[in-house]
Amino acid sequence: MEKKVRLQGKHQKSDYFCSMIEDKNPQRTDLEQLGEFGLIEHLTKNFDVKHTSTIKGIGDDAAVLNHNKKHIVVTTDMLVENIHFDLSYVPLKHLGYKAVVVNLSDVYAMNANATQITVSIAVSNRFPLEALEALYAGIETAAKIYNVDIVGGDTTSSTTGLIISVTAIGEVSEEDVVYRSGAKPNDLLVVTGDIGAAYMGLQVLEREKEVFKVNPQNQPDLELYTYIIERQLKPEARKDIVALLKQLDVKPTSMIDISDGVSSEVIHLCKHSDVGVEIYESKIPLDPQVISTCEEFNIDSTTIALNGGEDYELLMTIDQNDFPKIKGNPNLTVIGYITEKNRGMHLITRGEQAIPIIAKGWNALKNEE
Amino acid sequence: MEKKVRLQGKHQKSDYFCSMIEDKNPQRTDLEQLGEFGLIEHLTKNFDVKHTSTIKGIGDDAAVLNHNKKHIVVTTDMLVENIHFDLSYVPLKHLGYKAVVVNLSDVYAMNANATQITVSIAVSNRFPLEALEALYAGIETAAKIYNVDIVGGDTTSSTTGLIISVTAIGEVSEEDVVYRSGAKPNDLLVVTGDIGAAYMGLQVLEREKEVFKVNPQNQPDLELYTYIIERQLKPEARKDIVALLKQLDVKPTSMIDISDGVSSEVIHLCKHSDVGVEIYESKIPLDPQVISTCEEFNIDSTTIALNGGEDYELLMTIDQNDFPKIKGNPNLTVIGYITEKNRGMHLITRGEQAIPIIAKGWNALKNEE
Repeated sequence: MEKKVRLQGKHQKSDYFCSMIEDKNPQRTDLEQLGEFGLIEHLTKNFDVKHTSTIKGIGDDAAVLNHNKKHIVVTTDMLVENIHFDLSYVPLKHLGYKAVVVNLSDVYAMNANATQITVSIAVSNRFPLEALEALYAGIETAAKIYNVDIVGGDTTSSTTGLIISVTAIGEVSEEDVVYRSGAKPNDLLVVTGDIGAAYMGLQVLEREKEVFKVNPQNQPDLELYTYIIERQLKPEARKDIVALLKQLDVKPTSMIDISDGVSSEVIHLCKHSDVGVEIYESKIPLDPQVISTCEEFNIDSTTIALNGGEDYELLMTIDQNDFPKIKGNPNLTVIGYITEKNRGMHLITRGEQAIPIIAKGWNALKNEE
Repeated sequence: MEKKVRLQGKHQKSDYFCSMIEDKNPQRTDLEQLGEFGLIEHLTKNFDVKHTSTIKGIGDDAAVLNHNKKHIVVTTDMLVENIHFDLSYVPLKHLGYKAVVVNLSDVYAMNANATQITVSIAVSNRFPLEALEALYAGIETAAKIYNVDIVGGDTTSSTTGLIISVTAIGEVSEEDVVYRSGAKPNDLLVVTGDIGAAYMGLQVLEREKEVFKVNPQNQPDLELYTYIIERQLKPEARKDIVALLKQLDVKPTSMIDISDGVSSEVIHLCKHSDVGVEIYESKIPLDPQVISTCEEFNIDSTTIALNGGEDYELLMTIDQNDFPKIKGNPNLTVIGYITEKNRGMHLITRGEQAIPIIAKGWNALKNEE
């Protein structure tokens, strides 16, 4: 008897395609009924303050924060409909969650703790209130899970699509902050988790969208792709790594988050640190679903791992002396090492060929139609 | 002989209508030629760091700031094409300037000093590089004039229009911060500058746009409206008032910036402070150009002053004991006083009628087409 793979609740395939399937939501409240202030009040009424550093959150001209003697880090990202997400297969709740997570990832890449966010949204009135409630539910869930206060934002109209702009604030002691610029020759290049999954998840979703266009009755079968689809639709930021590094007493010499792909990010690290790098193809951590899906799509998995993007893992360099502290940790994989700048930046293939690393990463400005 | 009013360089009428007139800019560099990182580097290369609190600006996963023991304030606003601005008469340089100013205004409304901003932009490829350069020139000019560091941001595509999202950060001592919630009965209600001009400037620009549609050769004559048009296109934030209040040794009991109109803002103050208010129609400060343009458009100037919006002046309440300190100051006009909550919120007309104050302010969510 064929073994049936059971999906967890949150992996139900219909969830991912809810936008396609549930287009005709019977409950539909027009945004105009509430007005701007009413809408903001409605959407933010559950936001509570958890951090003592949040003196005043939503409800004044500006939030007031007190991080005492700590440094603060500030980062911002904008997600634009049909550039960064496609609502035909991205559930709004997941989108809200992801919009927060991609910003927190940048905070963690500074070795800082995320404490506050602001969320601005521009939305056309083709979205009913219930859609915005779903979006904010995702934002609120992420804020709860990552323990950040939502301290401000802006809600306004757009003439067409949905735009989400999040600013994240974190705190870090002066001695703990990690920049892109501290890598030095002989440091180990370390990546967290596994990479390439988010990109392959996107490929599957794009394929199913095409199938759906031809036959809307056909329920997509996504059982083989649950991990990679979740990595695309609902990525997590590596808050745990900041805590783990502290626990292991390891301060990376440099760190960056992987939003555009390992190639692109390692080039940033090397450029800012004035060094070269060698990455070993055989060391790159890949999930089995990435490997099997790459085979199915007839794509080279190393190319995907290096250029896929949207993994929101952390890429860091660590002093060789710290190697015993990270050795064997399942969250941290050594994939190469830093060299003198004049050695260049290379991928060492399984066949021991040295191939120059170039950034083919996802480029927001080339995705335009 | 008729006296000719000379316009300053920045008031040249053709300036305001440059988008209409100079549509066919001979220099046109496609954004795709640069790519995302090239574009950001190109646009931000002149941004220098002025504040010691800016430890690290643009160029890492996040900016790193150190405000030492001071509180920080954080505020964010999004400007969306065809909702908040119309590029047929808003020059991009002024738009960039205004996008910064509207955020700084919120910082000053906390009685704080603005120190840093982040700027995120989503733009469709119908904009050439030169258009973005003009936009960033305005952003940079505002940053210079208001002495704030540009420490981060995001630049991405949009499928249609232009969206600008700015986050502003300021610092303030714990004892100096002013909220919306501190007004108490008998406090004086004080407004800075004059009000209603930005709204009337918009009416003139909208009218000229309609004229231009019918006859594109007709150069609009804007000499009578230079002040109100400048208030609309290139507003200033009241950084000087934060300094002035310190110099006068006056700490307002509450304060808010006037972005949606005095009616709407005074309701916020009263609601947060649990008080009532009386505003005297005869005390409302109006520029002569506002009065004459209101007459020309056959609109009641008091209605415009109370509901116009976009003035970016400050509305505050001051303890009666501080009145001698502000008396006669041309920047500060007493327009009413705070009452017990049960007295309600009223406008006292020139005919001594008490009319309930209701918010008719500009509502972003009703402006949608």
